Amino acid sequence: MKHPVFETLSVETDKGVLHATLNRPEARNAMNVAMVRELTELAGFANEHADVRALVIRGAAGNFCAGGDIKDMARIRQADGSGDPAADYNRGFGTMLTALSRTRAAVVAVLEGAVLGGGFGLACISDVAIAHRDAKFGLPETGLGLPPAQIAPFVVARIGLTQARRLGVCGGRFDGEEARRLGLVHFCESDESAVAVRLDETLGQIRRCAPNANAITKALMLRVGNEELEPLLDDAARQFSECVRSDEGKEGTAAFIEKRLPGWAE
Amino acid sequence: MKHPVFETLSVETDKGVLHATLNRPEARNAMNVAMVRELTELAGFANEHADVRALVIRGAAGNFCAGGDIKDMARIRQADGSGDPAADYNRGFGTMLTALSRTRAAVVAVLEGAVLGGGFGLACISDVAIAHRDAKFGLPETGLGLPPAQIAPFVVARIGLTQARRLGVCGGRFDGEEARRLGLVHFCESDESAVAVRLDETLGQIRRCAPNANAITKALMLRVGNEELEPLLDDAARQFSECVRSDEGKEGTAAFIEKRLPGWAE
Amino acid sequence: MKHPVFETLSVETDKGVLHATLNRPEARNAMNVAMVRELTELAGFANEHADVRALVIRGAAGNFCAGGDIKDMARIRQADGSGDPAADYNRGFGTMLTALSRTRAAVVAVLEGAVLGGGFGLACISDVAIAHRDAKFGLPETGLGLPPAQIAPFVVARIGLTQARRLGVCGGRFDGEEARRLGLVHFCESDESAVAVRLDETLGQIRRCAPNANAITKALMLRVGNEELEPLLDDAARQFSECVRSDEGKEGTAAFIEKRLPGWAE
Repeated sequence: MKHPVFETLSVETDKGVLHATLNRPEARNAMNVAMVRELTELAGFANEHADVRALVIRGAAGNFCAGGDIKDMARIRQADGSGDPAADYNRGFGTMLTALSRTRAAVVAVLEGAVLGGGFGLACISDVAIAHRDAKFGLPETGLGLPPAQIAPFVVARIGLTQARRLGVCGGRFDGEEARRLGLVHFCESDESAVAVRLDETLGQIRRCAPNANAITKALMLRVGNEELEPLLDDAARQFSECVRSDEGKEGTAAFIEKRLPGWAE
Repeated sequence: MKHPVFETLSVETDKGVLHATLNRPEARNAMNVAMVRELTELAGFANEHADVRALVIRGAAGNFCAGGDIKDMARIRQADGSGDPAADYNRGFGTMLTALSRTRAAVVAVLEGAVLGGGFGLACISDVAIAHRDAKFGLPETGLGLPPAQIAPFVVARIGLTQARRLGVCGGRFDGEEARRLGLVHFCESDESAVAVRLDETLGQIRRCAPNANAITKALMLRVGNEELEPLLDDAARQFSECVRSDEGKEGTAAFIEKRLPGWAE
Repeated sequence: MKHPVFETLSVETDKGVLHATLNRPEARNAMNVAMVRELTELAGFANEHADVRALVIRGAAGNFCAGGDIKDMARIRQADGSGDPAADYNRGFGTMLTALSRTRAAVVAVLEGAVLGGGFGLACISDVAIAHRDAKFGLPETGLGLPPAQIAPFVVARIGLTQARRLGVCGGRFDGEEARRLGLVHFCESDESAVAVRLDETLGQIRRCAPNANAITKALMLRVGNEELEPLLDDAARQFSECVRSDEGKEGTAAFIEKRLPGWAE
């Protein structure tokens, strides 16, 4: 699997897993315009390669991501000319979050150090979120006079309106344990080795599931609440039928009858 | 109250409560086509009988339900001819879950042993779910190369997208205590007698509520998020007004003033 | 800031915070028609005054609110003439809850003693809910033969369908600790002084956030799930851009660079 070379991300592949590291440690991996664009491209790359079964996102040097890059903000303030550069800049975060949320592959976020602003948003679209107990989550935007405009909708989708509205008006900051209580992350681990064990376990579980069945299940789940239930169930039944007739479905049944692991789990 | 005779369910009635037992213990109560059809009929029967105030669903011989019947799956794979028998087979599960979710009566699920696939779906549509600590919940479909197509939407509606998407890509398996933490069940009890006590308490609470007011409340709640809020509140106000003028509403007020139990609670 | 004089509410202002007390202690602050109307007016007043940054709602003499006033119920039962006075009466609660939920200011509810019916509804639309451990939450309506018609939708929006449907059919009653577990309130405190400390902390956090950025964030969050995501993100980007160019946005950035508190936080 040959992946693009990125400026702000370092990427490695290992047995169907794409390990991406936000790699601007000098800025606590703050998201500049290039990183937002490259993360969006990464989602596209994963979608085009059916052999990518999981995408692990973490940050370099002990931080996940400190949010938007303050230098970009200064630049868009001074931009001249036509259009609305501040709106375009901001909208890019939402496009990136939507693209990563809908990736075919399972997205696993490993959350350490700063998990702020856009990094907080990234945590909100992962399929599995593993936090270090000492991670520092926060939405600092309103303290700077700005709304977390592209992040807020993903926070509501992640933890529900009740908790989100409190964080929204109180500019909440909290650690990994509180993130687990809020339902923002699935696991809170007390040290790096426990984080690594949890990540291994998670990737092992993902590998035991059929790649296409997993992608279909995830896509169905993301549609719930955005479409009428009855036609969604109709479509789900058609997809089930296709899977029954597919090579993957046949291999799954054969392996079950023969009491062996299916090919995708080896 | 005369109920139909079923092939796969054993049913008893007791003071306005319909006790239904999934009764294919030789297959850990796996849902074959007949059971899916009969559960859908059971929902219809309960709706047609206003004196059914609660519907308790449990499984025979220590298991709730092991999911879809593997023999049906083999048969539909070999089916010839026109149409899409695999899609029709699968869609039946969604029809059954929708019908039971919308039943007028309060649905109470008692969850012991295997709670897999379609059984997991059934847990997701109950009004009150009581789990034994050692119950084994799981969505094994993706491990067999198939999506839990009709179940997945009900899982999202039950525990929210954040937890559902992790289970979806990890093929999650967990016990009753984790089911309670995930918000899938309301109660987790450590032994059979505690389960029985909780069931009694729950049925006692349901009996103290007015049957029609309960049915209206449940129906309103199921509409939230699927309709615009303002017309929903308008309609709710009309239904409130009808209840005020109804025999049930008059009895409730009279009993309150006379400091006695209302007729439905005796 | 000159606020209207109310019959059923006592109101004080303090540094951008409107402290409103439900003030019918002889009826455990039950909501009569006047109180429902005045709470709706209070929401309008707060919206028209951008310097109101928080609205604290509590009850006089140790109770939050015992629900609808039983005398109003008796009166509408006997009302003659045209129209549907019972529906109009009931609909007023939903109008009030919607207006308060959408208030620009952050709404903080302090919940002690009785938190029943309409008072339960009020708890459900707060941005921050602080409960005393001994508070008594409940939806007693169905026990009286009536549905909690205007409250039920806000309960579902607050705690999700899974927990709401159980409360709906069981007529649930519970204390502050269970309210926190259900996600109905954010904090449960064990005595009055701990409640006061939590309220101070909360108001301090709200004051550190920019007033307009907070109002925009809250309004965005309330739209999630009621609109398509993509146009919502487009609109959010436009609002972000306006904030960047606003005095508030400029002050926030300047304060950050100059390492001082922004004007709104002093």
